[in-house]
Amino acid sequence: MAKKPLKALFFDIDDTLYSSTDFAAGARRQAAQAMIRTGLKIDEETLLEELDEIIVEFGSNDDRHFDKLLRRLPKEAIPAGGKLYIIAAGVIAYHQCKFRNFSPYEDALEVLRTLHEKKLILGIISAGKPMKQVEKVLRLNLLPLIDFNRIFITESVGIAKTNPKIYMHACRAVGASPQECGYVGDKPSVDIDVPHRIGMKTFFSRRGTKYQNIPGVAEPDHVIHNFWDLLDIVEKQYEIAHHA
Amino acid sequence: MAKKPLKALFFDIDDTLYSSTDFAAGARRQAAQAMIRTGLKIDEETLLEELDEIIVEFGSNDDRHFDKLLRRLPKEAIPAGGKLYIIAAGVIAYHQCKFRNFSPYEDALEVLRTLHEKKLILGIISAGKPMKQVEKVLRLNLLPLIDFNRIFITESVGIAKTNPKIYMHACRAVGASPQECGYVGDKPSVDIDVPHRIGMKTFFSRRGTKYQNIPGVAEPDHVIHNFWDLLDIVEKQYEIAHHA
Repeated sequence: MAKKPLKALFFDIDDTLYSSTDFAAGARRQAAQAMIRTGLKIDEETLLEELDEIIVEFGSNDDRHFDKLLRRLPKEAIPAGGKLYIIAAGVIAYHQCKFRNFSPYEDALEVLRTLHEKKLILGIISAGKPMKQVEKVLRLNLLPLIDFNRIFITESVGIAKTNPKIYMHACRAVGASPQECGYVGDKPSVDIDVPHRIGMKTFFSRRGTKYQNIPGVAEPDHVIHNFWDLLDIVEKQYEIAHHA
Repeated sequence: MAKKPLKALFFDIDDTLYSSTDFAAGARRQAAQAMIRTGLKIDEETLLEELDEIIVEFGSNDDRHFDKLLRRLPKEAIPAGGKLYIIAAGVIAYHQCKFRNFSPYEDALEVLRTLHEKKLILGIISAGKPMKQVEKVLRLNLLPLIDFNRIFITESVGIAKTNPKIYMHACRAVGASPQECGYVGDKPSVDIDVPHRIGMKTFFSRRGTKYQNIPGVAEPDHVIHNFWDLLDIVEKQYEIAHHA
């Protein structure tokens, strides 16, 4: 079987390069425990359930989760004068987790390094608020491997991931045709279906569990369970087309 | 000499309970270095000087310092596409310092513990944004010693520290007359002059250097260089009036 040319691979961030699901669950638990230690009178599980509801209702990018949380709890749960302290304790604990527990999947970093050495162009196409996604790129220590001009955040570019134009934009920016580029993501309905429409090679990462059972329309070109699978596929089925 | 009754001592936070001057200088340097590591093409000292100017011009509570900083630098200093990454790197480094280097003066914590054991009421009267000051109280680990109902932040109370009413408000809240209360701070024109006007005992902390040479109108009742001085004065000259 003839090897196909591959110039660039673009990646999703959340639940592809690191486990955002695990990170968020851990950080929310740390925050809940800190709020209880600071005087909030409620049991940890009830607090976490309420917080999960807020995230479903208002999205994970809302920055007033803890504030809303306290307004939703019975008044008796909050000691007089303690509201701000409890919120701040939650915020501090959550941020502390960013310093302690924010890291890429180990194999992701190793394989990105290998692909970088092989001169494959690496990029990111990710949905979210620019500052939040940029912070993740920095905390995951990806800048030595991925040039910031190859990172495309939906709200910066002004195109959502449901629109193939953002993938086209990224391919064009690295001087490659969509057929010479791949996309690696965990959400079939956007990460597979949309880049597939313009002819990109699609890699469905099954490790992030959230969308395991919500298939898209298109069949992914490849299914990977970790980044060693990815490296194996690239090495066996593709020819890295060195850029100028 | 007969000992005077003392029911409560209130404290300023910044440069009284911890060295905000030293902390900020260190955190700004860490931030500048991180921005340079992320691609900003300027030397560290020039960057820090520009940042100092911004803080003088816009105040230390402005939350867009690094954003302003980059807009003030020559365009050539910022690599194409790198602006957000450089700002985020600065913010992350600054925050990291909060986790690593944010601690009270060692003697302050020890003396507060001793005074707390002696049943002296301890409180805080501090200028600033509620969330920022509350965060400091938590990071300095003061809550086990100071009840949050005895912490008065100007923007929460709605009275500035230039108005004696905030000191009166605090004394009343702990059920003491101003004559039975003391205030410990580093800025004579507000921390000494204003509480002095309502008859509180005033302690000028000379350790924070910023206002060393800007005396107020009133003579402080006491001058301290560290918290051991404070403990010594309280033990020798005051009788702690135990509250109910």
